[in-house]
Amino acid sequence: MSATIIDGKAFAAKVRGQIAEQVARLKAEKGLTPGLAVILVGEDPASQVYVRNKGKQTVEVGMNSFEHKLPADVPADELYALIDKLNADPAVHGILCQFPVPPHLSETEIVARIDPAKDVDGLHVVNAGLLASGQKAMVSCTPLGCLMLLRDQLGSLSGLNAVVVGRSNLVGKPMAQLLLRDSCTVTIAHSRTKDLPEVCRRADILVAAVGRPEMIKGDWVKPGATVIDVGINRIDAPERGEGKTRLVGDVEFGAASEVAGAITPVPGGVGPMTIACLLANTLTACCRANGLPEPEGLTA
Amino acid sequence: MSATIIDGKAFAAKVRGQIAEQVARLKAEKGLTPGLAVILVGEDPASQVYVRNKGKQTVEVGMNSFEHKLPADVPADELYALIDKLNADPAVHGILCQFPVPPHLSETEIVARIDPAKDVDGLHVVNAGLLASGQKAMVSCTPLGCLMLLRDQLGSLSGLNAVVVGRSNLVGKPMAQLLLRDSCTVTIAHSRTKDLPEVCRRADILVAAVGRPEMIKGDWVKPGATVIDVGINRIDAPERGEGKTRLVGDVEFGAASEVAGAITPVPGGVGPMTIACLLANTLTACCRANGLPEPEGLTA
Repeated sequence: MSATIIDGKAFAAKVRGQIAEQVARLKAEKGLTPGLAVILVGEDPASQVYVRNKGKQTVEVGMNSFEHKLPADVPADELYALIDKLNADPAVHGILCQFPVPPHLSETEIVARIDPAKDVDGLHVVNAGLLASGQKAMVSCTPLGCLMLLRDQLGSLSGLNAVVVGRSNLVGKPMAQLLLRDSCTVTIAHSRTKDLPEVCRRADILVAAVGRPEMIKGDWVKPGATVIDVGINRIDAPERGEGKTRLVGDVEFGAASEVAGAITPVPGGVGPMTIACLLANTLTACCRANGLPEPEGLTA
Repeated sequence: MSATIIDGKAFAAKVRGQIAEQVARLKAEKGLTPGLAVILVGEDPASQVYVRNKGKQTVEVGMNSFEHKLPADVPADELYALIDKLNADPAVHGILCQFPVPPHLSETEIVARIDPAKDVDGLHVVNAGLLASGQKAMVSCTPLGCLMLLRDQLGSLSGLNAVVVGRSNLVGKPMAQLLLRDSCTVTIAHSRTKDLPEVCRRADILVAAVGRPEMIKGDWVKPGATVIDVGINRIDAPERGEGKTRLVGDVEFGAASEVAGAITPVPGGVGPMTIACLLANTLTACCRANGLPEPEGLTA
């Protein structure tokens, strides 16, 4: 048996198309344009690429993109003043600060400063609490993207056994909350778990979010299971030439794809969903801020 | 084999003793007395009993108890003004409003009004978020009590398979978070779970919080497991005479206690821990408000 390879790039494009449609309708019917503000502190090249991509995709779906670039030595007070201004600006529905920030700034304090209703990265403690108590939250983009892929693949998730390997605040824990909300029986496994292979073998849905290259082996996968690989690990690839590297996930892809029913590749699986979900969250925040119904198919 | 019956009443008394000692030390060394404010709206007889018990035990451990009784028709604004006053009062470290409240008042809004740092019932969305993200939170009393019983019984919980049956915001979900924080492999099961008996049979720690009398059968329990029964259900007991009733848990106690290693009875198991944990949370809140170390053995 050979698994369906879940094409995250194609699905993300489809999601962006749905967002663009709903944005166009919002403009035509309500005169509203969702707006996403991105703050970039300093000149980190990788961060610059991310921010540029986010801005480009934001505009492509018809939203307003507001980029705020601050020098690496910006005083915390100035950054907070900007966040306060964006919090108060009705044209801004989503705010994110690109991390990492320089060491004189505190990521925790930055996140705490953002209005939870505009926290499209879903990092604010209030959003963690809303998610944990089953209320309307802004949900962190990567787990939201995984959930969308799973629903697209499987339809209803109710009653399925889901195993999340990894208990990070950014992925593992919110992922477990989302799967529980969709009525999976959810197990959270981690480095202290005994007999992890056996725990994984019970999973109809296996989400790997540990950050260790190919740690989850093919024979840990239940035949027919849906495998979502959140890991992005760069490893040496001498077979491609001296000094070459390649990206792999947390799952041993080749062997797992012989057994699984469906599996996300790395790259091209979960990764492309992240920005799509950021845009989905911005649209959701805009709808909520204006007392409109949740955008269809784009929320947890 | 016959299980150890976990004596929650005795253990709660021991915890209250530890609290009393730490309160006495706080008074002697820092001149601080923790204070718990309880708000009771209306004249519900059961609530009056609870509030009286809480007040009595608060004073017994050496804390200040502040009782605020409001008429059943108190306007929401007046109640909120009282909460604001208690939030600002440095002598008050914990605030709880006894639920249920009359229907013209919103429990959600009352909880949201309480300063999260003084929310000793652990109901505020910020506390749910802090717990979910592994930070210092005020933890809801019943799951905290279960955790204390488990640690007392088992020592380290790391690596144990824990199954929580029930996914309520008040018990099931925070219980799962606490067990995860103590490095259990945690499964959350519920009404949509397939083959619940089999899932339960994998549990080294089985927490039942479903509110259905004796739903969990003796042969669902793994030999030697520790069983925590949160349910308190009143059922007919014709064998005790016409119209008589008795209390049972969510677990079939007789059969389960033949198999389990340890088990909480109902009544007398988890129940008595609730007020003890309320007092523990008040002491914790007092220590945090004054920048002192966490009280030993009384927090998650």
